[in-house]
Amino acid sequence: MSQAAAQASVPAYDEAWFAARAQAGVQGLKAYDPGHDLVALRRRFGEANLVELGSNENPYGPSPAARQAVLDSLQALHRYPDPLGADLKRALARTHGVDTSQILLGNGSHELLMLLGQVFAGPGDEVVFSRYGFAVFALATQAAGAQMRIVEALPREAAMPCGHDLDAIAAAVGPRTKLVYVANPNNPTGTWFGREALTAFLDKLPPHVIVVMDEAYAEMADAPDYESALNVLQRYANVAVTRTFSKAYGLAGLRVGYLIARPGLVAVMERLRESFNVNGPALAACEAALGDGEHLADSCARNAEQRAALSAALAERGLRVFPSQTNFVLVEFGADTARIETALVARGVVLRPMGGYGLGDCLRITVGDADENRRLLAALDAVRA
Amino acid sequence: MSQAAAQASVPAYDEAWFAARAQAGVQGLKAYDPGHDLVALRRRFGEANLVELGSNENPYGPSPAARQAVLDSLQALHRYPDPLGADLKRALARTHGVDTSQILLGNGSHELLMLLGQVFAGPGDEVVFSRYGFAVFALATQAAGAQMRIVEALPREAAMPCGHDLDAIAAAVGPRTKLVYVANPNNPTGTWFGREALTAFLDKLPPHVIVVMDEAYAEMADAPDYESALNVLQRYANVAVTRTFSKAYGLAGLRVGYLIARPGLVAVMERLRESFNVNGPALAACEAALGDGEHLADSCARNAEQRAALSAALAERGLRVFPSQTNFVLVEFGADTARIETALVARGVVLRPMGGYGLGDCLRITVGDADENRRLLAALDAVRA
Repeated sequence: MSQAAAQASVPAYDEAWFAARAQAGVQGLKAYDPGHDLVALRRRFGEANLVELGSNENPYGPSPAARQAVLDSLQALHRYPDPLGADLKRALARTHGVDTSQILLGNGSHELLMLLGQVFAGPGDEVVFSRYGFAVFALATQAAGAQMRIVEALPREAAMPCGHDLDAIAAAVGPRTKLVYVANPNNPTGTWFGREALTAFLDKLPPHVIVVMDEAYAEMADAPDYESALNVLQRYANVAVTRTFSKAYGLAGLRVGYLIARPGLVAVMERLRESFNVNGPALAACEAALGDGEHLADSCARNAEQRAALSAALAERGLRVFPSQTNFVLVEFGADTARIETALVARGVVLRPMGGYGLGDCLRITVGDADENRRLLAALDAVRA
Repeated sequence: MSQAAAQASVPAYDEAWFAARAQAGVQGLKAYDPGHDLVALRRRFGEANLVELGSNENPYGPSPAARQAVLDSLQALHRYPDPLGADLKRALARTHGVDTSQILLGNGSHELLMLLGQVFAGPGDEVVFSRYGFAVFALATQAAGAQMRIVEALPREAAMPCGHDLDAIAAAVGPRTKLVYVANPNNPTGTWFGREALTAFLDKLPPHVIVVMDEAYAEMADAPDYESALNVLQRYANVAVTRTFSKAYGLAGLRVGYLIARPGLVAVMERLRESFNVNGPALAACEAALGDGEHLADSCARNAEQRAALSAALAERGLRVFPSQTNFVLVEFGADTARIETALVARGVVLRPMGGYGLGDCLRITVGDADENRRLLAALDAVRA
């Protein structure tokens, strides 16, 4: 059929037309909601007047060595990055005591979580994860055209309010389940589970299921019973752990995440990974950041201190603060939540609304540094008065 | 089934086991071949002694304004990049005279080409492209689980040797065809087609097919009859054009590509785009690079001059040089190709072998600066002597 012959029925070429041409999974998809337009807010308020506590960024920034590494990369911007990311992988292998063949690098762990869905799930398959799990779990499942099995979380009154109900997750796994996504600690609730719960959970799962443990906040967990799944990888070969440089390492601007699993899993995912998915300055900065353990420890210690102080200050104000092992706290504001959130933004204090997660009576508050937390509390007192 | 109960049949958890759990498209997939391990070669030879002409990078580097923009971004590495990429989109919209809603940003055009496949093609669909087309076209098709229809290229003896046979491509499009990938100019052949061929081709295609015009090298095309598909987007609403900052802009290290099409196509792809797919320093550098038109023009002029000089020098040596509108030339070395390539690497001169493209008797040579080309020719004379 020539263009001329088709004149009578020229398509509209609007979003509906293109969506109808798209894969089924994409047709029902809504993009990830990254929160407020911070670029616009920075221009409106001026950066110094803005208190940015909506994105769980690290207020202490990255290691100075990471900045220096970016600087050193300026003369090579015209060169493609190392497609193997070999130096960064070697540094990660040393840090975690694993082999480089067990490591996959991603453009943020977001990319790795999406890639896991794309590789291992498809139409007819099921992917299991918890309500109030990280939004990307749902996106990855839908994009792959697979079926979501969302498991109810623990009740609001539980010791870990809205935390993962691991027994229910294990019970939801069936013969068509290809992937289980679990975050520990979890975003956006801040909740976590301990060593015994972890192994009891993994023991219950059938060996054909791939379990993705998203540990974006693991470096900041200091509860005595917290254990990273990295420590049980030897025993549970069906587990893949994702980590990120965006949180504790203070490098959200560079987009680097990594996955650690069996070499066989990594090899299969490497087939689909885009060769230059992590850029040059990012590779260099992350390698340098790994060499500065002191900065990481200091950053995490300051976060823990401020997390306790902020949680106490919010609780003193009669607000319910969820327990957290991360660099944010989920806080119940009740029926007044939307009004408070809007009033805070008007004062230049940016938190993350939780309506998209079905937690519309809560706000997620990044633990800032002492000064940011002070400004947040002052603004909060003013708008709640 | 508990882990204990399954002891009798514990899976191997090797690559074969994970591959069997993967989607059909991934099972037959081989990752993109990025060429030699340049990091290892730089360490072996020392950067100053290496002549890197395998990756079509820009020897003149990016605009100094781009480097400055990366420097300026160092204080914000802990912040997530703008998920909308709004400033860069505005700059691109001005440059190309389109609306920002027509622009999609990618982690290199590699990501955009993959995403096009993922969104619009799936099992049962066909994707049409030319033999000797960019390797990512095949990857994107296979990853999506769609069927490749590879169309024979023009013969070696044609005026555009191994160039796209547009009539044959149009004839290969059928009712199950969802996407057509066409590169103009094409990598790895360097060949191109002109204005009339472009519109005659687009006129022949049925209106339900989405045509992807990959124009990674368009800025460097200066043939009088060359025309970018950007100039016919108004008339052909089913066309999407991809461009990159990796070539003429000299920013391969930062991984930024972009797509221009109808707002409806962009909106559908936005659903699947990872929110922070382009990192902070990369967004800033590309915006700055767009503001330095003089550097771009100078870079392209020097490339054109060196391309002519290098082509002539190679032809003088009795080698067949394919016509090129890019920053590389494809060159026939005949039966001796592999030996020559290996001998060149041993002397620190890196070209791109073409066996993976089915052009094993050719090498792809990036047009370097005057000094690099001189060193290449000297090494070539030595190994061919």
